[in-house]
Amino acid sequence: MAEINLNKDILPVPGVKWSATYAGIKKNSITKDANSLDLALMEVSPGSNVASVFTKNIFSAAPVKVAQEKIDKFNYPCDCPIYLLINSGNANAGTGDEGIRDTHKCCQSLSDATNSNIDYVVPFSTGVIGEKLPVENIITSMPSLVDGLSSKNWEKASRAIMTTDTVSKAFSRSINIDDKKITITGICKGAGMIRPNMATMLSYVATDAEIDQSLLQELLNQAVNQSFNRITVDGDTSTNDACILVATGESKIKLSKSHPSFSFFYENLFELFSCLATSIIKDAEGATKFITISVEGGLDSEECLLVAYAVAESPLVKTAFFASDPNWGRILAAIGRSGVQGIDINSIEIILGGVPVFQNGKVSSLYNEEQVKNSMNSDDILLTINLKRGSTKEKIWTSDLSIDYIKINSDYRS
Amino acid sequence: MAEINLNKDILPVPGVKWSATYAGIKKNSITKDANSLDLALMEVSPGSNVASVFTKNIFSAAPVKVAQEKIDKFNYPCDCPIYLLINSGNANAGTGDEGIRDTHKCCQSLSDATNSNIDYVVPFSTGVIGEKLPVENIITSMPSLVDGLSSKNWEKASRAIMTTDTVSKAFSRSINIDDKKITITGICKGAGMIRPNMATMLSYVATDAEIDQSLLQELLNQAVNQSFNRITVDGDTSTNDACILVATGESKIKLSKSHPSFSFFYENLFELFSCLATSIIKDAEGATKFITISVEGGLDSEECLLVAYAVAESPLVKTAFFASDPNWGRILAAIGRSGVQGIDINSIEIILGGVPVFQNGKVSSLYNEEQVKNSMNSDDILLTINLKRGSTKEKIWTSDLSIDYIKINSDYRS
Repeated sequence: MAEINLNKDILPVPGVKWSATYAGIKKNSITKDANSLDLALMEVSPGSNVASVFTKNIFSAAPVKVAQEKIDKFNYPCDCPIYLLINSGNANAGTGDEGIRDTHKCCQSLSDATNSNIDYVVPFSTGVIGEKLPVENIITSMPSLVDGLSSKNWEKASRAIMTTDTVSKAFSRSINIDDKKITITGICKGAGMIRPNMATMLSYVATDAEIDQSLLQELLNQAVNQSFNRITVDGDTSTNDACILVATGESKIKLSKSHPSFSFFYENLFELFSCLATSIIKDAEGATKFITISVEGGLDSEECLLVAYAVAESPLVKTAFFASDPNWGRILAAIGRSGVQGIDINSIEIILGGVPVFQNGKVSSLYNEEQVKNSMNSDDILLTINLKRGSTKEKIWTSDLSIDYIKINSDYRS
Repeated sequence: MAEINLNKDILPVPGVKWSATYAGIKKNSITKDANSLDLALMEVSPGSNVASVFTKNIFSAAPVKVAQEKIDKFNYPCDCPIYLLINSGNANAGTGDEGIRDTHKCCQSLSDATNSNIDYVVPFSTGVIGEKLPVENIITSMPSLVDGLSSKNWEKASRAIMTTDTVSKAFSRSINIDDKKITITGICKGAGMIRPNMATMLSYVATDAEIDQSLLQELLNQAVNQSFNRITVDGDTSTNDACILVATGESKIKLSKSHPSFSFFYENLFELFSCLATSIIKDAEGATKFITISVEGGLDSEECLLVAYAVAESPLVKTAFFASDPNWGRILAAIGRSGVQGIDINSIEIILGGVPVFQNGKVSSLYNEEQVKNSMNSDDILLTINLKRGSTKEKIWTSDLSIDYIKINSDYRS
């Protein structure tokens, strides 16, 4: 698998501090990191705005319920510090009322330790579903966690939120607007149970630009929709997905839609979201290939995405990619059962690694099995499907299905 | 995997003959049978009625298109013999106009060899998608194929239609109605690319009862809907699925809805369909477990099936079954993303191998991990999900996702 092109210098964002520690929640080390971290804390300075999206899985976890409820009641800009408490190793999902009480207990402990308003202490969890949150471990770790807060800890935090991830995921952008430097930095985690639905796996992004909350939420929705909502590993939407975008305003650069550099800022923000989202696919459980599926010539977004996901989530297509086998018949069969009606088999075009494989209702005259096989041996593959009946185009990212995926997911809890 | 409980004595059906041969279509032996067969012929005597269902994959294969067109024009009862020509090893799908021409050529050759009406010569194919049908091989084999017709060849035919199947699938029932013996015998194939959609993998069932065509079609639709349309291996609907039910009438027992033994006949017919459908799951590619998912307490069939298939096709649930890991959190997450709105997490009940694992919004007080793990070690597992908001119940069958599934599907074409 291609090494993730991490931005080596993860830039601090004025107004944001992180801390991370090992609280003993990950009983068995499920990461490759010998010094497993499993508890992270983000401190956001007063005066910030926060935008958020959460999983649409109707069985959302206790921390998701509590976090949504609290964030809904925030006054903007917040006049007190905000604390985000994130544990890995335990999802606190499927844990009933006890799970809700447990998450409140952790928030209370953090509120006490920081002497802060509990309404602005927000919980997040990721890990195994259905096991009781080890509240005592978290409470015991609270003093050292708070002590460790530093603006330099983004990378450390990105390691603390990992579960089956094999690499940590953190990216930074620094741009100049009005002759001042603005920073955008973000982290995320995720490798399996990945098909975010109007939400993401856990991801935290911050900028020191000053952005009104309603606009910030709009930017987040738009960026998430084209990044985290365009990836799938296994079609499984987690109970714990969440994505948070913070604008601390510490740069004193106020960005509104009328600002001449607004688009420039959004482009950079979106690029960062794309880096985060695709880093999840590049680290997908057992993955050996990073696959971009571009569906073009559709009547609307919906049908492009139906086709794209039918192909991306077909176990037969995924294993063919694993084997570098140009078995395009499986792609054709998946398009045909995608639920989109009226696609004409004689019009569509399938292009694999730049080589047309299917045109005019049959194998393309330009098809060369060896050439396609070679391009499929690459660890970064573009599959283009042209429906040739409209002008809409959608792109999603996915991974192959390997023997290691089965091994990882047969072993995860043991 | 549990050995498939084959009915050792596959009974001939008066009015039906089969023949099978090796035509060199399966270039590499993809079955475990050293004496690969790849071409089968079914002869149905004049006076019979035929019912059929075909794949709803909109990119249906050339033989599916031709077969549907021909069968739609049959006059009932047919006044001439019907010939069904079935090859394995090549699906003749994604082959454009040439594929249509090729399938007609094979029919013409069979019509010539049998001196029969070509309108009643019907083609079927199963195997690799997108490769040209080796017409010459088929035509060359025609004389010996026709010569071999015998009422005793059901089992041989069931071997000739196999692709990645590891066992052949044939079942018989003999029942007495009006003091006469009526036989129902059927064969099918299928192990991967299995999620029949209002149709099936290839299956051929015949009885010597006399049944009007419209009623026969009604019986077929009903039986298929509760058998082949309730199984999934990988969520992939094939381009070539087809199921044929023949009533030769040779027993001279006329069955209509008013016949006192009609329900008795249907029960036996349905039981045979269930045996055929579940035999596909028991032979699912790489499968080590046969899993029955029963969703109860739903408002309607649709929501029960949405939940059942979301769980059955979740790669995470499937790998947990492979590992005998009672990771019910994955089941919960799949229900939560199934698309069914308004399910109350506090009402639902998950019962695994007879042990309640999730109740009242959290892990059940009766849950015993060791006990559930033991029951998951069985190769035949019942998972019950009670939505507790209605009285509808649906049952589907599926398999686990194993390392061998990946191996088989990475190797299939090579």
